[in-house]
Amino acid sequence: MALSIIDGLIAELTRLPGIGRKTAQRLAFFILSMPHEEAKAIAAAINEVKDKARFCKKCFNITDSELCTICSDPDRDRSRICVVEEPSNITVIERAAIFKGLYHVLLGALSPIDGVTPERLKIGELVARINKEGIKEVILATNPNTKGEMTAQYIAKMLEGTDVVLTRIAYGLPMGSDIEFADEVTLGKALEGRRKL
Amino acid sequence: MALSIIDGLIAELTRLPGIGRKTAQRLAFFILSMPHEEAKAIAAAINEVKDKARFCKKCFNITDSELCTICSDPDRDRSRICVVEEPSNITVIERAAIFKGLYHVLLGALSPIDGVTPERLKIGELVARINKEGIKEVILATNPNTKGEMTAQYIAKMLEGTDVVLTRIAYGLPMGSDIEFADEVTLGKALEGRRKL
Repeated sequence: MALSIIDGLIAELTRLPGIGRKTAQRLAFFILSMPHEEAKAIAAAINEVKDKARFCKKCFNITDSELCTICSDPDRDRSRICVVEEPSNITVIERAAIFKGLYHVLLGALSPIDGVTPERLKIGELVARINKEGIKEVILATNPNTKGEMTAQYIAKMLEGTDVVLTRIAYGLPMGSDIEFADEVTLGKALEGRRKL
Repeated sequence: MALSIIDGLIAELTRLPGIGRKTAQRLAFFILSMPHEEAKAIAAAINEVKDKARFCKKCFNITDSELCTICSDPDRDRSRICVVEEPSNITVIERAAIFKGLYHVLLGALSPIDGVTPERLKIGELVARINKEGIKEVILATNPNTKGEMTAQYIAKMLEGTDVVLTRIAYGLPMGSDIEFADEVTLGKALEGRRKL
């Protein structure tokens, strides 16, 4: 039996992570019933990302021009850089709407076992920026896991002797969580990092 | 701040049912990292469905030509019609790979309170097919809820006096479920519909 038009869409959607047959089917029939322009806008956004996405020349965020929207925003605090592993991390941090500085994406984290050495990451570019752009604070927001910690420590070592203020995002209990279910490492870090009220 | 290219895709994806901000973000960055052709194929499948999908002239399934893939398949048993409410129901039944006959989509279920009268559904077309195509069995696979039951009973009444065999899909316990958690209506139906081993 020839694949029907809707089966084709279902098959394509199942390529996406977390989208199984049932979800793909629900999405496909929803797309079928959506206003024409809305469905077309989804397809166009996918095409746009694939055709135009590249890395920001300065911070390695995703962009469709030379500089990303954050690097080219005149209202951002240009004295602070938040260092992250991946462009997707920027989206999450931006949603918190707390940080108003610039970013620097490493495009990964150190992992000697996988062959990810410092040269494979955008660490040299970070050091160059710090020297050139008159950065006052570098916030290391790599992941709180082995690779992320190793990367943060490596960068800290690279910046030894410069007068930039180096900080690390806080470890602690997630908001809305329950101490009862916290793992002991996190709990230990939360106690260590306690702040005066 | 101008909306970045990836934020555009995230915003579009959140229009889909069950896709919140976090899932949309995960999907968007996954699409960004996918092979170019695969991502393009998703966009193309969406465009294709929106540009070409129409109803099968005979059974009202979704198709991109005059007849759907099932109606135009010479290997299907043309003496049996399975009546369903929506095209999406066909996809589910086909996956079970038990039924080898044809379908008829009503494009809804009777619901006088919502103004869905028999004329709004493809019931007249079903009766015409039964008379014209020499159908031997009509399986009513409308939903086992108030509207679906009402619709099945209405069709049964319309076909009174014809010699077509009219059947209704079985009610009972879902496979893999537990009697402990079955509602009493389903359990009653499962007992009523018991079969000799």
